[in-house]
Amino acid sequence: MNTRGRRAIAMAAKAGLPPGQAVFVGKQKMENATIDVMNFTPDEITELQNCSFQQALKLAGEESVTWINVTGIHNTDLIDSIGNGLGLHPLTCEDIVNTDQRPKLEEFPGYMFIVLKMMTYHEGRKDIDVEHVSLLLGSGWVISFQERVGDVFDPLRERIRKAAGRIRKSGPDYLVYALMDSVVDNYFVAIEGIGEYIETLDEEIIADPQPTHMNEIHRLKRCILSLRKAVWPLREEIGTMDKNQSDLIAPETGTFLRNLYDHTIQVIDMVETHRDLLGGMHDTYLTSVSNRMNDIMKVLTIIATIFIPLTFIAGVYGMNFHHMPELSLAWAYPAVLILMLIVGLLMVWFFKRKKWF
Amino acid sequence: MNTRGRRAIAMAAKAGLPPGQAVFVGKQKMENATIDVMNFTPDEITELQNCSFQQALKLAGEESVTWINVTGIHNTDLIDSIGNGLGLHPLTCEDIVNTDQRPKLEEFPGYMFIVLKMMTYHEGRKDIDVEHVSLLLGSGWVISFQERVGDVFDPLRERIRKAAGRIRKSGPDYLVYALMDSVVDNYFVAIEGIGEYIETLDEEIIADPQPTHMNEIHRLKRCILSLRKAVWPLREEIGTMDKNQSDLIAPETGTFLRNLYDHTIQVIDMVETHRDLLGGMHDTYLTSVSNRMNDIMKVLTIIATIFIPLTFIAGVYGMNFHHMPELSLAWAYPAVLILMLIVGLLMVWFFKRKKWF
Amino acid sequence: MNTRGRRAIAMAAKAGLPPGQAVFVGKQKMENATIDVMNFTPDEITELQNCSFQQALKLAGEESVTWINVTGIHNTDLIDSIGNGLGLHPLTCEDIVNTDQRPKLEEFPGYMFIVLKMMTYHEGRKDIDVEHVSLLLGSGWVISFQERVGDVFDPLRERIRKAAGRIRKSGPDYLVYALMDSVVDNYFVAIEGIGEYIETLDEEIIADPQPTHMNEIHRLKRCILSLRKAVWPLREEIGTMDKNQSDLIAPETGTFLRNLYDHTIQVIDMVETHRDLLGGMHDTYLTSVSNRMNDIMKVLTIIATIFIPLTFIAGVYGMNFHHMPELSLAWAYPAVLILMLIVGLLMVWFFKRKKWF
Amino acid sequence: MNTRGRRAIAMAAKAGLPPGQAVFVGKQKMENATIDVMNFTPDEITELQNCSFQQALKLAGEESVTWINVTGIHNTDLIDSIGNGLGLHPLTCEDIVNTDQRPKLEEFPGYMFIVLKMMTYHEGRKDIDVEHVSLLLGSGWVISFQERVGDVFDPLRERIRKAAGRIRKSGPDYLVYALMDSVVDNYFVAIEGIGEYIETLDEEIIADPQPTHMNEIHRLKRCILSLRKAVWPLREEIGTMDKNQSDLIAPETGTFLRNLYDHTIQVIDMVETHRDLLGGMHDTYLTSVSNRMNDIMKVLTIIATIFIPLTFIAGVYGMNFHHMPELSLAWAYPAVLILMLIVGLLMVWFFKRKKWF
Amino acid sequence: MNTRGRRAIAMAAKAGLPPGQAVFVGKQKMENATIDVMNFTPDEITELQNCSFQQALKLAGEESVTWINVTGIHNTDLIDSIGNGLGLHPLTCEDIVNTDQRPKLEEFPGYMFIVLKMMTYHEGRKDIDVEHVSLLLGSGWVISFQERVGDVFDPLRERIRKAAGRIRKSGPDYLVYALMDSVVDNYFVAIEGIGEYIETLDEEIIADPQPTHMNEIHRLKRCILSLRKAVWPLREEIGTMDKNQSDLIAPETGTFLRNLYDHTIQVIDMVETHRDLLGGMHDTYLTSVSNRMNDIMKVLTIIATIFIPLTFIAGVYGMNFHHMPELSLAWAYPAVLILMLIVGLLMVWFFKRKKWF
Repeated sequence: MNTRGRRAIAMAAKAGLPPGQAVFVGKQKMENATIDVMNFTPDEITELQNCSFQQALKLAGEESVTWINVTGIHNTDLIDSIGNGLGLHPLTCEDIVNTDQRPKLEEFPGYMFIVLKMMTYHEGRKDIDVEHVSLLLGSGWVISFQERVGDVFDPLRERIRKAAGRIRKSGPDYLVYALMDSVVDNYFVAIEGIGEYIETLDEEIIADPQPTHMNEIHRLKRCILSLRKAVWPLREEIGTMDKNQSDLIAPETGTFLRNLYDHTIQVIDMVETHRDLLGGMHDTYLTSVSNRMNDIMKVLTIIATIFIPLTFIAGVYGMNFHHMPELSLAWAYPAVLILMLIVGLLMVWFFKRKKWF
Repeated sequence: MNTRGRRAIAMAAKAGLPPGQAVFVGKQKMENATIDVMNFTPDEITELQNCSFQQALKLAGEESVTWINVTGIHNTDLIDSIGNGLGLHPLTCEDIVNTDQRPKLEEFPGYMFIVLKMMTYHEGRKDIDVEHVSLLLGSGWVISFQERVGDVFDPLRERIRKAAGRIRKSGPDYLVYALMDSVVDNYFVAIEGIGEYIETLDEEIIADPQPTHMNEIHRLKRCILSLRKAVWPLREEIGTMDKNQSDLIAPETGTFLRNLYDHTIQVIDMVETHRDLLGGMHDTYLTSVSNRMNDIMKVLTIIATIFIPLTFIAGVYGMNFHHMPELSLAWAYPAVLILMLIVGLLMVWFFKRKKWF
Repeated sequence: MNTRGRRAIAMAAKAGLPPGQAVFVGKQKMENATIDVMNFTPDEITELQNCSFQQALKLAGEESVTWINVTGIHNTDLIDSIGNGLGLHPLTCEDIVNTDQRPKLEEFPGYMFIVLKMMTYHEGRKDIDVEHVSLLLGSGWVISFQERVGDVFDPLRERIRKAAGRIRKSGPDYLVYALMDSVVDNYFVAIEGIGEYIETLDEEIIADPQPTHMNEIHRLKRCILSLRKAVWPLREEIGTMDKNQSDLIAPETGTFLRNLYDHTIQVIDMVETHRDLLGGMHDTYLTSVSNRMNDIMKVLTIIATIFIPLTFIAGVYGMNFHHMPELSLAWAYPAVLILMLIVGLLMVWFFKRKKWF
Repeated sequence: MNTRGRRAIAMAAKAGLPPGQAVFVGKQKMENATIDVMNFTPDEITELQNCSFQQALKLAGEESVTWINVTGIHNTDLIDSIGNGLGLHPLTCEDIVNTDQRPKLEEFPGYMFIVLKMMTYHEGRKDIDVEHVSLLLGSGWVISFQERVGDVFDPLRERIRKAAGRIRKSGPDYLVYALMDSVVDNYFVAIEGIGEYIETLDEEIIADPQPTHMNEIHRLKRCILSLRKAVWPLREEIGTMDKNQSDLIAPETGTFLRNLYDHTIQVIDMVETHRDLLGGMHDTYLTSVSNRMNDIMKVLTIIATIFIPLTFIAGVYGMNFHHMPELSLAWAYPAVLILMLIVGLLMVWFFKRKKWF
Repeated sequence: MNTRGRRAIAMAAKAGLPPGQAVFVGKQKMENATIDVMNFTPDEITELQNCSFQQALKLAGEESVTWINVTGIHNTDLIDSIGNGLGLHPLTCEDIVNTDQRPKLEEFPGYMFIVLKMMTYHEGRKDIDVEHVSLLLGSGWVISFQERVGDVFDPLRERIRKAAGRIRKSGPDYLVYALMDSVVDNYFVAIEGIGEYIETLDEEIIADPQPTHMNEIHRLKRCILSLRKAVWPLREEIGTMDKNQSDLIAPETGTFLRNLYDHTIQVIDMVETHRDLLGGMHDTYLTSVSNRMNDIMKVLTIIATIFIPLTFIAGVYGMNFHHMPELSLAWAYPAVLILMLIVGLLMVWFFKRKKWF
């Protein structure tokens, strides 16, 4: 069973359960969920790895920014306890673990809830892996939820450690922006990977079209479709974040959000371009196949039309009439052979003139 | 006659009748309409099965939530008497029994009227059954109308009985939300069913395309279309419910409605994905058929082009000229046979080089 | 010349004339225009048939509702005299007789002007007849203009006579609603007719596609297009009527207008479904034709590829070489025949295995 | 070089020039620009033909309406002097002579500037001629600019002379409306012409499709496209005129503008219908061509499949085996001929049953 | 690797870097960045070429307009120093050097930032070169950034030097408008170039379709797509500039901006027309190829169907039956030859009548 089927089943399995109940929907991608914390002020930084949620919360202070990163969301008990600890709405917990949830932004009293999709291009499978990422922005803290260990946020961690850029001087809203920016920057990497594969495929199809190429085009279309589904709502999301004027977002962050908005539009542009290319590849495939058929047809036509009249001539002189005066002429046989040659050459000349080969 | 024809006729049969007259439009799906009631407070619960509407109404109290479920809507007299008993607008009664009515939400003085479509996948027929569901939300009471006995609302009944989740603690608006949620959750089950069948069909088409597959694709397209027609207006409906700020909807229910709104978008996404898949299957079918034709053409071409020159050679030496010196040479016959073999092998080599087989 | 041509010419004929001049555009569908009147209060009813406009106007009273029905709009003098009698804007008179006028609603001081299209399915021609209907709603009176005698409004007349439903108790706005409702109800009848014909055609095309079927599909597409053009603006029209809050429309009528609005959406849904079906029929036709071609090609290929090698073998033993040792063997002839049989059967087996027949 | 190329070059030639400089863009369509004036009140009328702009201006009075018609816009000096005389914005002058300017309406202090496209169907070339028309509406005066002498405004001149309709009693805004109405009425004439040609072409294509028909369809599509480009902005233009409530437009003219708006929608409807028809003609062409190919293929198949087995039988009895007992039987030859006949007839019967011819 | 791939990689390379850091994205198009300045009042003008940014800034005065043109944006240090000198937002610097940035307009405190794309048609490569242009508008100064030395702004420089038009009398906002106008005027030149090539290609395809033509059509489609992507956001940009009522834009400039807006719509119209033409060329190609195949098929059919029956006749009289009375008739041979001729001519006549050649 493929991804689509599995998902519908996962959602279907939830049918009948009361809403707001956290049920993990998706494929478990790691064994144990882990929690990492970074607590920083412009001057200081404390880090804890693989700690409990209680330890993480203790780190949070008045003036500092606390970033709690939860890796692994299949552990619904953990998510529920985090939800209870922070007073999250039950539907928020449901959405954190529901990997089918589309990107969205929702404001609840005391926190902002953001759902994103991480996109990674898998070189071996020539496919895009989709990962469900949730962000919670409170006053002074940010919690991020990932499906598995990944290195997308590592450069950001480095920047925090090295106090590069304005990240250490800004609030949690800028941190959320930086997390989203990392995700969007990663889209370019994913699109690069898929784009290169599309080009390789295009060249293969022109050289030697195979029925399997059609499946590959279909698969890539679905791939691009999932990118589209991740980016289009993200654009709205960022637009809403900028315009909503929540207390949790400082006005200075607005310019950065508009820049991020621009980047998502750029991603959308690229996605749409690749979509058009894939649409065009279907045509390329069909044209390529039809060109081959035309070549085959031409050869058939040329050979058949050259030999059919010649065979007829041979047939005429194979008739057994008693009175066929030509048959007894000494030069008749070579003459007929020459006649056949001339007819054949006339045919070839005719096809040449018609530019058939 | 098929469904479309029947429906148009049903609507056409109503032409000339005064509006607001309840005329059952559809196919009767059960013999006798039945009424079930649940009356509950956070602490108590009373249930009556197969009672009369008067008995049901008596159960309703000041503080409690009364849910009256009417199964079977072909009995227009019953619907009319319910309408009169509750002071419903005549057009509401008309819409309750009109199974062609699209999903909609309408506010009337004293009650809110909601039309939904229940979707069930029929494993045997590989088809989706559409059922017309109407909900009436008044202050303290909810009435649901179904076309036939179904088990979609059973888990909800269990939750009420067991006081699971917040259902017993909330008002009738939450009950309406829970009913709609059950219906939408069921869409996922229906989409799962149809999705699996689509995949099976896709594989069959690639393996061995048959003209009947085209009909099947057309039928599935219509199926998906009916899903679309049910879900798109539902989305608007839920959006309106959330935004309209009716007195009948408590503000806390808003978050749940937004969640349900999200689920309908997810359903729409899936429906659109399946629609794209079906559109692609048409191409798959045509490509598959055309690949078969190409294979056939290739075989024809190869066999014809190999044997046509050979037959010509045979024809030449079948001519009856008296002076054909080759004929009397002892090694001429084997030589010609070898010539034919060489010509044949040259042809095969030419086709191999051209990658024709 | 067909309808399109005729219409453009009719409009073109008006080029150069001052606007607001009533010029009949269309095909005269009856000989003499006639006027019928119904004047009713909840208690009384007076009817006049085939009277003059002056007689009709005399009937109108303070408290009663007067419905004047004008059948036949080619008599521009009559229309002009009605226009002068009621003080209509000259453009209203122009639009009443201009059968090309799209459905629209316009408010003028003292009256509301509504243009509709009546649709009737003609069983013989398998075509939809379009009739131009105009309604004028004043305070206390309604005037309807039809192109020819029809029975669409007859059930309404009966309901007025029998005082069925709320028609006798309501004002002229409800009468206008009831007239529009009759027209819309009739759309269902027309769609039913065309829908049945589409199904018959679909089956014919699958069984035996003919080039004439393409013309039929084109004709039906145009048919559906004219339905679309009638219904889409009607929807806007009814929406405007409901929302505009004109003094001429009582608030109670609003609920009925919203219901009618719903019905037009249902008509639009059906029209779009039939449009999709017709679009699919084109594909069905092409697939059906191409399936036939494929069958023909297969037979050609199978017969040719079976006999081409056999003919070659026969050709070889028809050669006249003096030294062909096989020729003198007694069992050679039956052996070659058996060889031919084996080659033929191998071919058949090959095709069977490839599932070519 | 064709029109597109020429236009882009014309615009390209302007690259580098300061904006607001009147440069004639287009093809000069007449030798000398001429000016005609009509000055009228409800009672009096003065006309001057082929006068200078100064003479024309002198005619204008307080109470009268002055209509100055300038024919020929390639004379940029004249346009500039008119612009200076009336204090027009330099960009207005640029737009008057720029035949590529799309229809638009712009309000400047003291005047309103309207750009239109006149469409004339050329019977010989089966093509639509586009002419650039500009209208200036000031208080008490109207100036119209045409590219060449035409008779589209002649009926209007007659109506002014004969004081027909309300034109003499209304202000310059009604005159502008009447001019626009003349142009729009003319669209119907153009569409009629092109529509008839489309039908003729359609019949030709069904009867005998030729590659040149494809070019013709492409050309007509471009033709329809230019009509579309002229009408769509015109609709907006008229809508703006009606809604903007400029002092230059009297409220009474509003009803007429709404009527004109309706006519443009009707033109758009017709244009879209013809566009659909042309889209369908492409399919008709392809189907028609493919039907011919199918006929050809069928004949090939039938003749080949009938004769291939027969030729094989002949080949068998042409073999030179010494021991072929049938050969010496007296009735063998007629028997084989009858066998051939039977095989041939069986084939024909098989094809008949399959409905292949 | 092609442009798309390169771009995605460039953006991907930025992944992980803090936002607001100027990283040159694109292909360096010149060696050293240069700065030119023009400082002018209505009466005076000072020019400096190849100066430093500090020298350029010194020129700026209270009353004058200073235009600093920076050519070459790969030197991020220079851009950063300009950014610091003028107090630009770090994201502005990032966007100046990011050649993938779409056209946009952003207002920052103290300046307005405009991103454009310059389009140049390259005659040799038949391709469009895209250049990234940024404009900064402050109070009294304008800074333009170009990727390489170009002559698009030269006519503007001439106009400034010669004080032609209103450029010297207007403020920096008019200068920005004039710069944008130069860019848009240049679009017409680019479209002219591409348009002429499209026509040449169209004729080639009709005359002799080649598989390479498909690639060419695809390449041109991408070309037109990049034009589209440059112009559509530009339209919004200019619309925003006109409506936003920034202090930096004088009201008189509004009319010119609306005119420029109109020009961009004209460019969009042309781009869309060329897009349609390219879409049609795909069809032209397929029709052209299929016409050739049809010609080939016809010749095959005609030759095959003429000779197959003749060969059969020859085969019959090649049979070796002992009792074939015709064989010994003296006139049999010529009679059979005449029979063959008649059959052949009948075939030709049949094909002629069917209009097959």
